[in-house]
Amino acid sequence: SIDPSRLLGRIHELGEIGRDADGKLTRLAGSETERLGRDRLVSWLEDAGLEVAVDRIGNIFGIWNAGGVGEKPVMIGSHIDTVINAGIYDGCFGVLSGLEVIQTLKSQGFEPTRPIVVTAFTNEEGVRYAPDMMGSLVYSGGLDAATALEAVGTDGTVLGDELARIGYAGSHAPGFMTPHAYVELHIEQGPVLEREGVPVGAVQDLQGISWQKVTIDGDANHAGTTPISMRRDAGYAAARVITFLRDRAAASNTPTVATVGCIAFEPNAVNVIPSRATFTVDLRDPDEDRLRQEETALAAFLEQLAADEKVGISVERLARFEPVKFDPAIVRLIEAAASDRGLGCKRMTSGAGHDAQMIARIAPSAMIFVPSRGGISHNPKEFTADTDLVAGANILLDVVCGLATG
Amino acid sequence: SIDPSRLLGRIHELGEIGRDADGKLTRLAGSETERLGRDRLVSWLEDAGLEVAVDRIGNIFGIWNAGGVGEKPVMIGSHIDTVINAGIYDGCFGVLSGLEVIQTLKSQGFEPTRPIVVTAFTNEEGVRYAPDMMGSLVYSGGLDAATALEAVGTDGTVLGDELARIGYAGSHAPGFMTPHAYVELHIEQGPVLEREGVPVGAVQDLQGISWQKVTIDGDANHAGTTPISMRRDAGYAAARVITFLRDRAAASNTPTVATVGCIAFEPNAVNVIPSRATFTVDLRDPDEDRLRQEETALAAFLEQLAADEKVGISVERLARFEPVKFDPAIVRLIEAAASDRGLGCKRMTSGAGHDAQMIARIAPSAMIFVPSRGGISHNPKEFTADTDLVAGANILLDVVCGLATG
Ligand SMILES: NC(=O)NCCC(=O)O
Ligand SMILES: NC(=O)NCCC(=O)O
Repeated sequence: SIDPSRLLGRIHELGEIGRDADGKLTRLAGSETERLGRDRLVSWLEDAGLEVAVDRIGNIFGIWNAGGVGEKPVMIGSHIDTVINAGIYDGCFGVLSGLEVIQTLKSQGFEPTRPIVVTAFTNEEGVRYAPDMMGSLVYSGGLDAATALEAVGTDGTVLGDELARIGYAGSHAPGFMTPHAYVELHIEQGPVLEREGVPVGAVQDLQGISWQKVTIDGDANHAGTTPISMRRDAGYAAARVITFLRDRAAASNTPTVATVGCIAFEPNAVNVIPSRATFTVDLRDPDEDRLRQEETALAAFLEQLAADEKVGISVERLARFEPVKFDPAIVRLIEAAASDRGLGCKRMTSGAGHDAQMIARIAPSAMIFVPSRGGISHNPKEFTADTDLVAGANILLDVVCGLATG
Repeated sequence: SIDPSRLLGRIHELGEIGRDADGKLTRLAGSETERLGRDRLVSWLEDAGLEVAVDRIGNIFGIWNAGGVGEKPVMIGSHIDTVINAGIYDGCFGVLSGLEVIQTLKSQGFEPTRPIVVTAFTNEEGVRYAPDMMGSLVYSGGLDAATALEAVGTDGTVLGDELARIGYAGSHAPGFMTPHAYVELHIEQGPVLEREGVPVGAVQDLQGISWQKVTIDGDANHAGTTPISMRRDAGYAAARVITFLRDRAAASNTPTVATVGCIAFEPNAVNVIPSRATFTVDLRDPDEDRLRQEETALAAFLEQLAADEKVGISVERLARFEPVKFDPAIVRLIEAAASDRGLGCKRMTSGAGHDAQMIARIAPSAMIFVPSRGGISHNPKEFTADTDLVAGANILLDVVCGLATG
């Protein structure tokens, strides 16, 4: 079994890196605070005697080349970038558990028949640069590194420049090690495990994700003198889209979710009718056909709205990933490990996107979930009990043992 | 009659002061660009031989003490601060026409029986600091200068600090001259005069204005994992308010207008349900009872929404002004001047707020309007034909002559 205090200590230590004066934790991809988090991780990897490598998109690898040099490695990973005002577990738990598993195996004299690698992928959250899961997407060949490095952030920065600035523009070609298998341990970030009282989730699939940025163009005009009938109000049109998406998802009786997380009006003045509204749309569904239907319904609504409100509407694609099925053999390994340790385990679907969904393109992959209190994530109140964290890391240990000798 | 090329030349010269690299004109109250506009105006006042005074709230006065020293002055005014990405006429036209009228009267040897004063009031637009019409409100005793100077801007600055920084924290007590009468010439900023083909508006009243800032608090959570039924989505709740206000105003068959011009979500990330939405509400109606009904309807909607969506809602008052009736005698002077010059003239209501509505508390006041092409204002496309500008300035000349000898 793993060392609980070492793992929990590191989770809390990393969780203090990147807090602002108000105590809010934010380590956006490629930022100064993320640099500090990366530096801390690299020092832990080196202290554990691992070989550290960084690839061109900034993914960090801690390689234990103990046995089976030249064989495809077992890869354990996740990410350490965060959303704005984040919790401490999302991503970090998976990376630090990977390190913990390798350190435990090393200290117990375990002899793997292939290398074991712990990975922290770049820009999983996608908050500053779209698409999300970018580092693992590039690693698995789904996006060209040069294109990804040119991504322009919400703050106008370019990812490649930022990685160079913080010292994480590595030289390895993304994909330089093809995994034998990939396992990712993560907090559920949703309410299912807690509600059902089950400590372990064996994640068998992951829903499709569609991100779009919508821009609506109307006319700026005076709020006091312009009759309602003469307005081309971009802000009102944006509000119509937000209520349409939410009301449709609420009425659907399907697991479809729709979210408008970002918005901006121009010129954004109290007495000026907005000339422009921009906002993001995050649509998700475990079923690809239904996700496509939702995208089509939105497009039709926007077309009608443009005609009704006499506004211009344009849509930019930020990210689009189909639902993914994980490897049934690894899912069974997870269930077996839980059963051996006397822990309940539930097969489930992931609502969040994860690096595992990208690595699944090039290697058998699956995920282990642990419960999130109140289903809360992307929020400082994100919380998982220590016993659940430790149990999850031990399941990971067992699964990696199986994969690294198989 | 006034000198058209001098007036039009100054309008265009002032209209170039405060443009950014993209050519957008913005002179927010107390800003660096507004300082440049103020400096230019003061140099014109001095060149015209006027005595320049600045009061504690930064209102600028150009005083012609030719006749009747000690008598109450005729005051002509407006403002030179602008909205974001503004046109060149709003406010500036009235101030520069006031200067033009005085210069014309001086050069023609006119002998007034009382002083004539041109005024540029501070922060009429209210975009950076609320409430709008602040300088004239303070001047007329409706708001204490010390309180106004403590106003915190949308950018976190304090108005008093900004006025001191730009050199316009004057020493005169606001209200130091009680006007005999106040006249303000302004572009209509609405579609009425153009639609009816009338060159002059005699403004007999001005609608009530209600500005509020609404803050909605929900819960940040993950956009992919949080079922719709478990959300407390502050952004969705904000969108519900925007559509409620607009749909209600559109359905009302009254002149009520409702506008949401500013909005912000927190944390404003693509895959995070907004934990907070803040937005402004601008409600206007020429009828005080109806304006109160609209405010009550909004309050009731917010209360129901808070219960339905399980969100917290708080409301802050930014500005509240009752409808104002202007002085019938000055309105008749305007009509007579238009008739003498062979110009059509229409009695009308102002949809926009103006400094005249504040000065009406302490002196007989009225306004002259000229047409706005397409009814467009608070927009770089704001436009009034030169002939209409010149005609308006000549009406102002005639009205001031009448008031300054009466
Ligand atoms: N796990 C996680 O929060 N990933 C970020 C990408 C997403 O929005 O699902
Ligand atoms: N005239 C004008 O645009 N005033 C600004 C205050 C308002 O919003 O009406």
